[in-house]
Amino acid sequence: MNTAELGLPVDVPSTALFTDHYELTMLQAALEGGTAGRRSVFEVFTRRLPPGRRYGVVCGTGRVLDAVRNFRFDERQLAFLRERGVVDGATLEWLSRYRFGGDIWGYPEGEVYFPGSPVLRVEGTFAECVLLETVILSILNHDSAIAAAASRMAAAAGDRPLMEMGARRTHELAAVAASRAAYVGGFSSTSDLAAGFRYGIPTIGTSAHAFTLVHDTEREAFTAQVDSLGRGTTLLVDTYDVAEAVALAVEVAGPELGAVRIDSGDLLLVAHRVRQQLDELGAHKTRIVVTSDLDEYAIASLAAAPVDAYGVGTQLVTGSGHPTASMVYKLVARASSDGADAPLEPVAKRSGGGKRTLGGRKWAARRFDAYGVAEAEVIGTGEVPGELAGSQLLVELVRGGEVVGREPLEAARDRHAAARGALPMSATQLSRGEPVLPTEYVA
Amino acid sequence: MNTAELGLPVDVPSTALFTDHYELTMLQAALEGGTAGRRSVFEVFTRRLPPGRRYGVVCGTGRVLDAVRNFRFDERQLAFLRERGVVDGATLEWLSRYRFGGDIWGYPEGEVYFPGSPVLRVEGTFAECVLLETVILSILNHDSAIAAAASRMAAAAGDRPLMEMGARRTHELAAVAASRAAYVGGFSSTSDLAAGFRYGIPTIGTSAHAFTLVHDTEREAFTAQVDSLGRGTTLLVDTYDVAEAVALAVEVAGPELGAVRIDSGDLLLVAHRVRQQLDELGAHKTRIVVTSDLDEYAIASLAAAPVDAYGVGTQLVTGSGHPTASMVYKLVARASSDGADAPLEPVAKRSGGGKRTLGGRKWAARRFDAYGVAEAEVIGTGEVPGELAGSQLLVELVRGGEVVGREPLEAARDRHAAARGALPMSATQLSRGEPVLPTEYVA
Repeated sequence: MNTAELGLPVDVPSTALFTDHYELTMLQAALEGGTAGRRSVFEVFTRRLPPGRRYGVVCGTGRVLDAVRNFRFDERQLAFLRERGVVDGATLEWLSRYRFGGDIWGYPEGEVYFPGSPVLRVEGTFAECVLLETVILSILNHDSAIAAAASRMAAAAGDRPLMEMGARRTHELAAVAASRAAYVGGFSSTSDLAAGFRYGIPTIGTSAHAFTLVHDTEREAFTAQVDSLGRGTTLLVDTYDVAEAVALAVEVAGPELGAVRIDSGDLLLVAHRVRQQLDELGAHKTRIVVTSDLDEYAIASLAAAPVDAYGVGTQLVTGSGHPTASMVYKLVARASSDGADAPLEPVAKRSGGGKRTLGGRKWAARRFDAYGVAEAEVIGTGEVPGELAGSQLLVELVRGGEVVGREPLEAARDRHAAARGALPMSATQLSRGEPVLPTEYVA
Repeated sequence: MNTAELGLPVDVPSTALFTDHYELTMLQAALEGGTAGRRSVFEVFTRRLPPGRRYGVVCGTGRVLDAVRNFRFDERQLAFLRERGVVDGATLEWLSRYRFGGDIWGYPEGEVYFPGSPVLRVEGTFAECVLLETVILSILNHDSAIAAAASRMAAAAGDRPLMEMGARRTHELAAVAASRAAYVGGFSSTSDLAAGFRYGIPTIGTSAHAFTLVHDTEREAFTAQVDSLGRGTTLLVDTYDVAEAVALAVEVAGPELGAVRIDSGDLLLVAHRVRQQLDELGAHKTRIVVTSDLDEYAIASLAAAPVDAYGVGTQLVTGSGHPTASMVYKLVARASSDGADAPLEPVAKRSGGGKRTLGGRKWAARRFDAYGVAEAEVIGTGEVPGELAGSQLLVELVRGGEVVGREPLEAARDRHAAARGALPMSATQLSRGEPVLPTEYVA
């Protein structure tokens, strides 16, 4: 399916150029040197979580499946590579026929992960796998970083809904992926219409300060908004004086007013005052929405305030201090000759201290205690121990080039809530700490 | 021009849904209430630079012009808005005919900016201007954040070339914009093929550790690479033992070897050793490229090391600690009635301390001392003082809906180098400090 033909505003016709130049030069050298056909296993993992974070959230898997499917070189792209002299004619010919025909397994989307977790495993010939490095990492590193921040915010917000409003603070297409990741992490809705269009996420929003300011008076603005959008709308009450605006809002809309939004000031103090004022005016059901520079700490600090919903922007789309995950895509095993039957041998970089990796094709499982609480991430390269066979983490996503692991976004969102819920309680402490599960390696 | 028809991998058919839900509900209420046609002036500015930063870099202007041109609602988008009940039928009808017909002025791309600088000014009816808020801010906030980091790195690198390699650390399309912003900020090339395709930026890269590891020996890997890519290639020498790899590299490629790349370890120490070893082997012209988790501080710390080029990834695409600028899009003036001749009145939010804004349509100029060094950013709402008339900063970008300010990317890159060069010398200190120019307001 060519997504460009659908006119979708957030996809692109081909993902094949979201690729580092060196993937193609390696391909050329491997094709010429005779190693391109060696069966290979690449794994995506991170050596560490961001400092202080207690768990990671796998996100972007569904987008990876789209990206692999759309990884096709068309005539214009090949012409570009030819004109620039990126690779030779034989390699261009090979690229013109490229379709990923291998297998991909991975942690299902929304699952939590820890240092060393093999969150994605790509298997096929060296040539067909090496090309996918950049686009797979771009997606997983971005989306997982946002989902991890969203998950912490969702834990801090408890039962109160979180609205994603950060589109204006990040690249316009990163924003769409960020809305998606926020939804997986536990947000309820987004301001971003493209995210609603592309992923079906509920969209929300009513008005900004500009709307009040374009009117001659706040009364005219509120009246126009209520006339057009109904009494259930949310009125923004901090353009001039909050107390006056709240009184005016209830006067204009009546006690059926849906909500008031506060976007500046000391939210804890202001929320209490506004709640009291609304109650005195009989607007007991009018909700209070706050939206000013929130992060997970600010959300937690408002737990005792009479706030009904949070809108989060900048800190969500920038990963609350950690805008990228540090996942890498590493060759961990390969055959010494061509052919599907050639035995795999583990390989790993050996120099450079902190950048060493563990060779070999891995399985992963999560061990739980008698109460169903996770107690360890267990990773190995040999046989899976019998007692862990039922709690393995990797699932099949692509088989022989065909996507088999697609699922609705809701499934990832539900899975994340369940996975986070099964972690030890200290997982959702906001303070800095070590990963909440140890990673254990078994031979 | 419908970019989707061109098969470009990095554009999208329409930018109209990169929009917050509330822009459309405000539009509906304004259309119904009679204020939609009021002539309005919106300005983009930031209240502050990121903590410690001494100047900002305007970037994304060229992408904004594309986004405004492609801001069109097609049938599928309108159907989505209808099905979701985002706005009413009259508003959908209005949207189906939407074309921005107003004027845009702004700081030219690559120019530096300071707190309060009106980096973009959008003028037209309230309705046509309010819709553009989100997409304009997404682009400018992202691209300017990356360009600011790039500029600091370029200042630290001096004459040594910087290569952008961060695609894998950010959203796949944000990566393309990041390459573009890095180029404006002073980088020379990118690993991202899509950035080469879309913006003509030179692309670079040769091989990763996976290429060495897929071979049975490092010798076979180096031989295959040199056979295919030539002796001028860059060999990656830190997969196993660096000293052995450097000896092997020169043995295989001869002293004509283009470069060696070091991606781990203590770069300062290793670079000195590798340079000495290369020289002893007679490979005096073989260059040393370093690429491991660099930022502007690491680059500066390598100033005395025998390094010939830097590859920067994560810290570039994440803005080196500041992944977004904090630009806002605010209504600063509007008429009290319809019509192009109705006089403009300044408006501004008044509550919420730190979020107050200065009303009125602004001009901006930069004052220089007798030596041509910038000494102040001067902003005003009245007449431009005669002595500043020649150093005004805003240029015309869109006139009556037609783009008039398009320019080649090189122009923005050159402008940035000149603008940074005209700042006081303390601008390029890496230590934290205040904005290097004060912002002065004149009535």
